Amino acid sequence: MHCGLMIVDEGLELLTEDEARGLLAMGEVGRIGITLGALPAIFPVNYRMIDGSIVFRTAPGSKMSAAAEGAVVAFEVDDYQLANRSGWSVLAVGRAEVIHDLAMSFKVLDARLEPMVDGTRTTIVRIEPTFISGRRIVHDPPPSTT
Amino acid sequence: MHCGLMIVDEGLELLTEDEARGLLAMGEVGRIGITLGALPAIFPVNYRMIDGSIVFRTAPGSKMSAAAEGAVVAFEVDDYQLANRSGWSVLAVGRAEVIHDLAMSFKVLDARLEPMVDGTRTTIVRIEPTFISGRRIVHDPPPSTT
Repeated sequence: MHCGLMIVDEGLELLTEDEARGLLAMGEVGRIGITLGALPAIFPVNYRMIDGSIVFRTAPGSKMSAAAEGAVVAFEVDDYQLANRSGWSVLAVGRAEVIHDLAMSFKVLDARLEPMVDGTRTTIVRIEPTFISGRRIVHDPPPSTT
Repeated sequence: MHCGLMIVDEGLELLTEDEARGLLAMGEVGRIGITLGALPAIFPVNYRMIDGSIVFRTAPGSKMSAAAEGAVVAFEVDDYQLANRSGWSVLAVGRAEVIHDLAMSFKVLDARLEPMVDGTRTTIVRIEPTFISGRRIVHDPPPSTT
């Protein structure tokens, strides 16, 4: 999988944007970073990638949707195995918007984006990433890629 | 485990601070939310709780330690099982500091705080939480607690 030049920054291989997008598309739970009452906050959400954007559902009038609406937010997905010190993370940054759009509602249903949490979660938040990066732990010497 | 009053907010049970601290103390990988070049960012780190603070190691002169130094940051830990729609998350907010202190270095070694990532990770960052909260997914009806 490591074709071509591998850029390693402080023990972390920088993924290509395609690789990072691929990992983002396969993820199910990510974390959104927002500002709540002038303080930074990070909350997990289950999400889907729809038309290249991160989409999740929240409760109507929730603090989170209010804080996210129109804000530039960070969104992170990762997977780590401590046992063999391996793992990766992907960071996406973009403007979050609450979507009031019937077509998007159907896309959300089609994507089977069902919140893990009970209760009314009919507010759809979309983050259109303007910046995506990813890192993967690499150990020295790197594994043979024959 | 659900003794006394359970406060449920939008399908999420609010944990007591003690419960949240307990989960934070058991975690190994968390995510720090910082601001990098005026943009929000979230990065995973492996950490330990030492003297009630979140402590992790990073590379000397790293972008992360520079961004974290003196800043009020968010730190999040979670665990989710999508299969049975269960999980919890803990959010801590506090000021991050780079610690130049021999006593802390020994505490870090004693706590076996060893970075997953290769390379020199001799900069110690501490977040002293001034605010800790936690949420756990609860489903209605809640499971019997006999």
